[in-house]
Amino acid sequence: MEAKSPSESRTTLTDLVLPSETNPLNNLFGGELLARMDRAASIAARRHSRRIVVTASVNHVAFNKAIPLGSVVTVEAAVSRAFKSSMEIFIDVWVEDRESGRRSKANEAIYTFVAVDETGTPVHIPPLKPETEIEEQRFAAALRRKQLSLVLAGKMKPAEATELKALFEE
Amino acid sequence: MEAKSPSESRTTLTDLVLPSETNPLNNLFGGELLARMDRAASIAARRHSRRIVVTASVNHVAFNKAIPLGSVVTVEAAVSRAFKSSMEIFIDVWVEDRESGRRSKANEAIYTFVAVDETGTPVHIPPLKPETEIEEQRFAAALRRKQLSLVLAGKMKPAEATELKALFEE
Amino acid sequence: MEAKSPSESRTTLTDLVLPSETNPLNNLFGGELLARMDRAASIAARRHSRRIVVTASVNHVAFNKAIPLGSVVTVEAAVSRAFKSSMEIFIDVWVEDRESGRRSKANEAIYTFVAVDETGTPVHIPPLKPETEIEEQRFAAALRRKQLSLVLAGKMKPAEATELKALFEE
Amino acid sequence: MEAKSPSESRTTLTDLVLPSETNPLNNLFGGELLARMDRAASIAARRHSRRIVVTASVNHVAFNKAIPLGSVVTVEAAVSRAFKSSMEIFIDVWVEDRESGRRSKANEAIYTFVAVDETGTPVHIPPLKPETEIEEQRFAAALRRKQLSLVLAGKMKPAEATELKALFEE
Amino acid sequence: MEAKSPSESRTTLTDLVLPSETNPLNNLFGGELLARMDRAASIAARRHSRRIVVTASVNHVAFNKAIPLGSVVTVEAAVSRAFKSSMEIFIDVWVEDRESGRRSKANEAIYTFVAVDETGTPVHIPPLKPETEIEEQRFAAALRRKQLSLVLAGKMKPAEATELKALFEE
Amino acid sequence: MEAKSPSESRTTLTDLVLPSETNPLNNLFGGELLARMDRAASIAARRHSRRIVVTASVNHVAFNKAIPLGSVVTVEAAVSRAFKSSMEIFIDVWVEDRESGRRSKANEAIYTFVAVDETGTPVHIPPLKPETEIEEQRFAAALRRKQLSLVLAGKMKPAEATELKALFEE
Repeated sequence: MEAKSPSESRTTLTDLVLPSETNPLNNLFGGELLARMDRAASIAARRHSRRIVVTASVNHVAFNKAIPLGSVVTVEAAVSRAFKSSMEIFIDVWVEDRESGRRSKANEAIYTFVAVDETGTPVHIPPLKPETEIEEQRFAAALRRKQLSLVLAGKMKPAEATELKALFEE
Repeated sequence: MEAKSPSESRTTLTDLVLPSETNPLNNLFGGELLARMDRAASIAARRHSRRIVVTASVNHVAFNKAIPLGSVVTVEAAVSRAFKSSMEIFIDVWVEDRESGRRSKANEAIYTFVAVDETGTPVHIPPLKPETEIEEQRFAAALRRKQLSLVLAGKMKPAEATELKALFEE
Repeated sequence: MEAKSPSESRTTLTDLVLPSETNPLNNLFGGELLARMDRAASIAARRHSRRIVVTASVNHVAFNKAIPLGSVVTVEAAVSRAFKSSMEIFIDVWVEDRESGRRSKANEAIYTFVAVDETGTPVHIPPLKPETEIEEQRFAAALRRKQLSLVLAGKMKPAEATELKALFEE
Repeated sequence: MEAKSPSESRTTLTDLVLPSETNPLNNLFGGELLARMDRAASIAARRHSRRIVVTASVNHVAFNKAIPLGSVVTVEAAVSRAFKSSMEIFIDVWVEDRESGRRSKANEAIYTFVAVDETGTPVHIPPLKPETEIEEQRFAAALRRKQLSLVLAGKMKPAEATELKALFEE
Repeated sequence: MEAKSPSESRTTLTDLVLPSETNPLNNLFGGELLARMDRAASIAARRHSRRIVVTASVNHVAFNKAIPLGSVVTVEAAVSRAFKSSMEIFIDVWVEDRESGRRSKANEAIYTFVAVDETGTPVHIPPLKPETEIEEQRFAAALRRKQLSLVLAGKMKPAEATELKALFEE
Repeated sequence: MEAKSPSESRTTLTDLVLPSETNPLNNLFGGELLARMDRAASIAARRHSRRIVVTASVNHVAFNKAIPLGSVVTVEAAVSRAFKSSMEIFIDVWVEDRESGRRSKANEAIYTFVAVDETGTPVHIPPLKPETEIEEQRFAAALRRKQLSLVLAGKMKPAEATELKALFEE
């Protein structure tokens, strides 16, 4: 299968924060943001694989910044690395100031999706070819994250996680 | 105020068609699509004016194509002409085929928004400077639509709607 | 098929404006009102045709009046003219003042629906027989609107739109 | 205060059964119907009293008939008796067959609302003057229901519930 | 079939009051609480019967206490008596004070569910064996409520409702 | 402040999977499950701290098991370790088979919340005292997770993450 670039799967979901999505402090619920990111990421995964895709996991997500009611939020998702049948999706979340028009980073998140056929069996997907510098950094980091995930799940011995181990041996 | 280009307000809302948004034939409700377009258009109006904006009107919308459950729908909105305090927003709706990746036009719609201050009084907004050929066509047609709208509302005499009248005098 | 009167399809949807349907100014979203009108109009079209109906188009809708959170809103829809397989539905929207009990007009809108069979093929529907004076006015205007819609869609030459042309020749 | 008739508070809410409101058997959730009836009844109570109203209780509701996805459901609510500051609202629910156009009774329910001022203190409301035969029957039965409710709540001795006691002494 | 205890069907649904569920006074809508109780009760009925269950009726529900936006609400449902194919479910609703941690009773409600097979035919279900004192009280009262319900529906003569009649003969 | 046990914050949210929460394969959306877990976890955090709490982060979540429409899902959240003003919440998700009544593990997740005052400033919270064996294991693992989170965020040098480093030195 021919490699695809991240720009071929890039998905933009710009929308308002509605009253039904806010917590008692009038900020976007963490859970709602997770749900929006899941939808954008699933579209990116589908665009890369042209298959049915299912959420396999969500990596660590930090909520550093409250997003108030009425904000314009942009969720941008693109495949950051493709493995045999799973894909890592990197998601950037931006919030926009109405008066200045400036947009600032509100969150980052990493989801993993698996491409399956109609019987739910994983299928092969095209590899990813990063093009920009940031795409290459995310591509490299994806391997470390996969190893970490396997170690934490008990499916890989820490000693075999060469990319990850290097991090602790400095 | 300095003129802005349509690209400065262009807003992309790519999302799935969820089960709660479909009619008994499992297609996206006309009413739900109107609501999504309203949200995207209001963000475009806000990006152009950097003001509070309220929906003033929706032009004629034709639903030529059913959009089935599970589709990926992209709503793209951008300001097509700015008047004193109102803006016409042109909206293109695309649907994407999962297997081929091809996207096809599903709808077009035109909404008008007014920029207001905190007391609800209309405020002046920057003019629009179209850049591409299609942006220029939409910019020109917007004036005819405004005249038609004023005629239909009884606020302009048909004889004064010079742009529109020309259409019937060929 | 026997003609039916507008009262046989008249549909009333009185409901509250809930917090999840309001914009940041605490007024009913334009998009939500469009969705409510679509549901009421589809029921009117179904009552007239006793068939499956799908939204074909929405005519120009003006939002002249903000509808605040907690309001009682009445959407009244009835068929205003029936063509071969399409119907024009005229919708009146009323808002009610709690203290005085007085209700005032908030909006008007016109939707077109098509009656189809299970395969999606348009089917013939009964004609409409207007009874009151306002029903007759709306019936007459519906033809002009249909011609305008065909002209704007490039499916009728302006010169053939006799009803409409008259408007510009006074 | 001048008495009002039930027709002055009668509220009609005709709407579709949407996919998000159905249970796994594709019928309207009992809970959703209870919520729709609560909204229609609260509007009727508000129309009678022109005050803020809060749900005080729901009488026994039987669900005799499943209402399938895509049905047209009409909820009709009107005040059936007014006490000092509380009102009994009688609700009829109808379902409509698309092909024949016939509508059949799906449910009946009785809610009680209390009119309050801004501090939540109950306020006096106008009495109800029934006009039709069915309105008079419901008006009479409302007193028996109020006694039963007081007996069950331990706020009235069964022996004092004269209207109700008669029922068991035949 | 072997008898089951109420604890085998007990269902706990602790959740927040979200903005989309509140009325204009920022309290949980009566209708929303009825819907939540319906979901919890249906799960309890399903746990007892291990069958498909449908709501048959809702007994009298009193709303004595407003539940404000942002509250933590706990709905606890358990089967209180099983008949041939119907079950009475007793529901307790608690609200929790954030600062003190104290929880207080907000509501009680009684729903009846019927267990059915795939064709909708009622099926036999296991009997209930109450264990605690309160379970025994509720078990005894359930019979009186069933008789009352039959009397009110005109399906039992008041004179035959022995449990109920006793109440009025003291 | 006096230490609390996990059972003092344990929160149970048992609910159905509704049609509006499922993806095109009729399984619960990953994003919806993340949102439900966020609500249950926020209640647990609030019960432990008796303060306003905000989501700070979500640890790695794996979705190993599809949860079909109509399932009964139980989300159980409890504080697993308290730091100065942040709490780790451990969440277990169970799905129940209707016929056998057996429940099986569907997911685990770990969220972190911070307790704040009305101005959003973090406040001190009570320590956690684990009681059962599994509570003690989760308590111990929480420290490793916190170190990993700090390392990944670049706020702690890998060499200082003593608990974590040990893992890679075996």
